[in-house]
Amino acid sequence: MKFSDLDAVFRPKSAALIGASRDSRKWGFKIGLNVIAEKFRGDFYLVNPRETEFLSRRVYPSVLDIPGPVELAIIVIPAPLVPPVLKECGKKGVKAAVVITSGFSEFSPEGGKLETEITRIANDHGIILVGPNTMGIYSSDVKLHALMVPVAPLPGKISFVSQSGNLGVQLLTESLAHEVGFQKFVSNGNEAMLHSEYYLEYFGDDPETRTIMVYLEGFKNPTRFLEIARRVSRKKPIVLLKGGKTDSGARAALSHTGAMRSAREISSAIFRQAGIIEVDDTTELLDVAKGFERLPLPRGPNVGIITGGGGWGVITTDACELHGLRVPPLSAGLTGELRKIMPDFWPGGNPIDLVATVKSPVVQASIKKLAAEPYIDAVIGLGVANRARALTEIPEAVARTMPPEMLREKTRAMEEGDRQLAELVRDLIEHHRKPIIAVSIYRTGSKDREISPIVTYPTPERAVRVLARMYQYRQLQQKKD
Amino acid sequence: MKFSDLDAVFRPKSAALIGASRDSRKWGFKIGLNVIAEKFRGDFYLVNPRETEFLSRRVYPSVLDIPGPVELAIIVIPAPLVPPVLKECGKKGVKAAVVITSGFSEFSPEGGKLETEITRIANDHGIILVGPNTMGIYSSDVKLHALMVPVAPLPGKISFVSQSGNLGVQLLTESLAHEVGFQKFVSNGNEAMLHSEYYLEYFGDDPETRTIMVYLEGFKNPTRFLEIARRVSRKKPIVLLKGGKTDSGARAALSHTGAMRSAREISSAIFRQAGIIEVDDTTELLDVAKGFERLPLPRGPNVGIITGGGGWGVITTDACELHGLRVPPLSAGLTGELRKIMPDFWPGGNPIDLVATVKSPVVQASIKKLAAEPYIDAVIGLGVANRARALTEIPEAVARTMPPEMLREKTRAMEEGDRQLAELVRDLIEHHRKPIIAVSIYRTGSKDREISPIVTYPTPERAVRVLARMYQYRQLQQKKD
Repeated sequence: MKFSDLDAVFRPKSAALIGASRDSRKWGFKIGLNVIAEKFRGDFYLVNPRETEFLSRRVYPSVLDIPGPVELAIIVIPAPLVPPVLKECGKKGVKAAVVITSGFSEFSPEGGKLETEITRIANDHGIILVGPNTMGIYSSDVKLHALMVPVAPLPGKISFVSQSGNLGVQLLTESLAHEVGFQKFVSNGNEAMLHSEYYLEYFGDDPETRTIMVYLEGFKNPTRFLEIARRVSRKKPIVLLKGGKTDSGARAALSHTGAMRSAREISSAIFRQAGIIEVDDTTELLDVAKGFERLPLPRGPNVGIITGGGGWGVITTDACELHGLRVPPLSAGLTGELRKIMPDFWPGGNPIDLVATVKSPVVQASIKKLAAEPYIDAVIGLGVANRARALTEIPEAVARTMPPEMLREKTRAMEEGDRQLAELVRDLIEHHRKPIIAVSIYRTGSKDREISPIVTYPTPERAVRVLARMYQYRQLQQKKD
Repeated sequence: MKFSDLDAVFRPKSAALIGASRDSRKWGFKIGLNVIAEKFRGDFYLVNPRETEFLSRRVYPSVLDIPGPVELAIIVIPAPLVPPVLKECGKKGVKAAVVITSGFSEFSPEGGKLETEITRIANDHGIILVGPNTMGIYSSDVKLHALMVPVAPLPGKISFVSQSGNLGVQLLTESLAHEVGFQKFVSNGNEAMLHSEYYLEYFGDDPETRTIMVYLEGFKNPTRFLEIARRVSRKKPIVLLKGGKTDSGARAALSHTGAMRSAREISSAIFRQAGIIEVDDTTELLDVAKGFERLPLPRGPNVGIITGGGGWGVITTDACELHGLRVPPLSAGLTGELRKIMPDFWPGGNPIDLVATVKSPVVQASIKKLAAEPYIDAVIGLGVANRARALTEIPEAVARTMPPEMLREKTRAMEEGDRQLAELVRDLIEHHRKPIIAVSIYRTGSKDREISPIVTYPTPERAVRVLARMYQYRQLQQKKD
C-alpha cells in the first residue's frame, strides 16, 4: 500500500453509502443525510436491497448495480454482512472502505475473527480499510461529511486523527466556537488495517494540511509510529493528546501513584524525542492546533503584553513565567515613545497597561511599536480585539435605556477600530514574522461560521499556553538543525 | 467600624451618583446608565453642579440639595475635588462612599497624600470608604449595578471581592456564559480604608452568600486576612486566585526559578492552612465557585462516570487520577443490574460506557443506580445532558435537508428527556447529598439568562478539577473537626 492511496478515502471522486436507511434513528440515515446536506463534490450513491428511495434519491440494491465507478464505500450494515459486501466492493473496483459498523474485535472474540476476515478480504482486493467501528471521516477538500453526527467544521488547515470517534466528533463540534478550521478528520476505529501513523504520514505529505492533531490511546506499532512522527514533525507540528495515561497494569495498582507517574513520564519523553507536542487536555489540543495553524512560531521566549487592565496583565505575566516564557522590561526608547501617546498617569513597563484608555489609535500604535522591538518574540493583546462584539452583549436593560443613536454610533466606531486592528495585526505578522495573539472574552457564536482575522483565545492563560507550546516546537526544530 | 456597616454599601436604601454626566464617554454617564437601566431598588439621585438633567431625571447641584436621605455616595469627580465633596457627604449623613475616581496612591506621591486625606475625612465623618480607584460594586439584593461597565450578572449565591476591577468585571461578564450566579461584587481598588478581609468577613456573615470568590494580588495585613479567612472558611468555601505569584524581588531575579517557586509554595501553604481553596487560573476560579454554589460536597474521592463514548471516559478517568480522585470498579450487584438494561455489547466497568445508546431511560436508570451505590461519592455524566441544545446547533444545511417534522419530533423528545433528567438529578442530589455533574459542549448562550437545572461544565477536565477542589475543601473541613 502506498500512502497516497489514502486519497481514495479523503479525495474520492465517487462514494456509495452501503446500508442507507429511511429510518431516522439509524446510522444509515444520519450519515446519508450529512453527506447529501453538505453537498459532497463527487458522485454519491445509496445502496440497500430493501429500500428504493432516500431523500428523493434512488437507492440501488447492491454496489454492483451502481452505473458509474465507486471509489469509496461507506459501510453501515450489520457486522456479519460486511464480508460478502466487501467482496462485492472488490468486484466493483472500490478502492477504499470506511466500515462504520461495530461488533468486531472491540466486542467479542467472534467479532475479532470477523475483523481478521474483512481485513483479509480488503487486502485481497486491494481495498484500503478504515475502521471498523469508526464514526467516520470528513474532508473539506471534497466536502465529504461521512460522519455519524451532524457537524460541519470550519474549513481550515488542521487534519485530525482520533482513536476515539466520539471524542473526535465532539471536538469538531466544539471547534466551531473557537474558530478552529479543519482540513481532514478520521476516526480510525479498531485500526484493523491502518494505524494512526498511516494517517500521520498522509497528513504529513498533504499540502493542504499545516498542522496535525492526534488523539491517541495506544500504539499498535510504537517503533513505526515514532519513526514516522519524527519525520513528519520536521515538516509540520504534530499536536497530540494521550488518553489512558495509566495503562491497565498501572490502573490496577491505582494507589501506587509513583508507578503511574513514571509510565506517563516515559511516554511523554518518547513523544518529545519524536518532536511531538504533547498537550495536557482537550481544550489545549484545540487551542494549540489553532495557534500552529494560523501563526508564525516565536523565535524566542520574550512576550510583550498590552492590556486594558492591570489585573489581567498580572495574570498573563504569571502564566508566562509558569510556562517558561519571559516578560522582559521595555527598552528606554520604546518607553519614551509610548509616553508620548499615553495618558500622564501611564505607569510604564511590560505589560503595557493602557490604563482604561483602550482607544483605537493608542492600541494600534502600541502594538505596532511593540511588535517592532527586536527583543520581543511574541505579542499578546488583552481586551483590545473584538470590541464591537462587547456591545452586542450588553444587558438588554442597558441597551433599552441608552439613546439608540448612541449605541449605533459606538458600534460603528468600534467596528471600524476592530477592522483597522485586524488589518494592522495581519500586516505586522507578515512583516515581523512574530505571533500576535488577542485575548477576548467575546467570541463569535458557533453558528456565525466566521473566523476572526485575529487569532483569539478566551483567557490569557490559554493564550500563554499556546505560545509556550509553539516556542517548544521551535526549540525542538532548532535542536534537529 | 462594625462589619455590618457594609450594609450601607451593599444594601443601601438610597444612593447618589456624584459627577453624573450626559457625556457618554464619561464614567459619570456609564455608571448612571447602569444603575438606572437595572432598576436599583432604592432612591437614586444624580449630582453635578453643571448639569440639570440626566436621562430625563433631575440633577442636583450638590448632595446637600437632595431632598431625601442618602445612604451611599458613588463618586466619579476628579481626584482633587473629592475631599470637599466627601465633607459635604459627611454633613448630609452619607454612610458609605464608593470612590471610582483614580489618580490617588496608585498614580503619584501627591495622589497618595490625597488618598490619606480622603481616608481621614471619611473616618472623621464615619463614612465607609470603598476604593478609591475602584470599578464599582454590584449587589443583586437591591439590584445595584454601580459598575463602570455594563454587565448584569445572573443572580446567585456567590460574592466576589477583586483587587483588580477590570479582571473582576470581565469575569462577571464571562460568568454569563457559564451559568454562574452572583450575589455581591466589589472591586476594592486602592483599599484606602477597607482591605479584602473586611469584605471577606462581611460575605462570611451574609446569609445570602454561599461561596466567596477572591482575586488577590497582595495583602495589606496578612495576619488579619488569614485569621479572618480561617474563621470564614469554616462556614463557607473561599475560592481564591492569587495574581502576581512572583513578588517584585523574585521578578527581578527572573531566571532564578527556584526562588520563584518557593515564594509561590509559601503563599499556597498559608492559604491552605487558612482553609482557602486556591485555584490555578481564572477559568478554574469561576468553575469552582459555581460548584460550591450549587452542589453538595463529595464525602470521598470515588467518582462514578457515565459516558456516551469511550474516549471521553478515558480522558475523565485520567483527569480524576491526576487530581487525586478515584474511579473505582463497580460492584457485581450494580454490574448485574446494568447488564439487564444495557445492549448486549456493553463492555461493563466504570466509566459506564453507554456505547452510543444515549437513550433517556437507560441514562436515567444508570445515573439513579450509580448515585445510590454507597462507595460512589460523586457522579459525572458525559454527553447526557442538554441534548436538545445539540439540535439547535446542527449545521444549517443538515437542518434544511431533514424532513421538518423529523427535527420537530426529535427536539420534542430530547427536550422531554432533558427535563426528566434534570428532575431526576435534582431529586438524587437532594436524596443522596452527593454532587452530580454533567459535561456538555452545548452551553446556554450568554444572552439566554437561564441557569440549567443541572450543573454543567464544557469539558470533563474542568468538571473533574471542580470535584477535586470540593473534595479538598471537605477534607480541610474534616481536619478542623
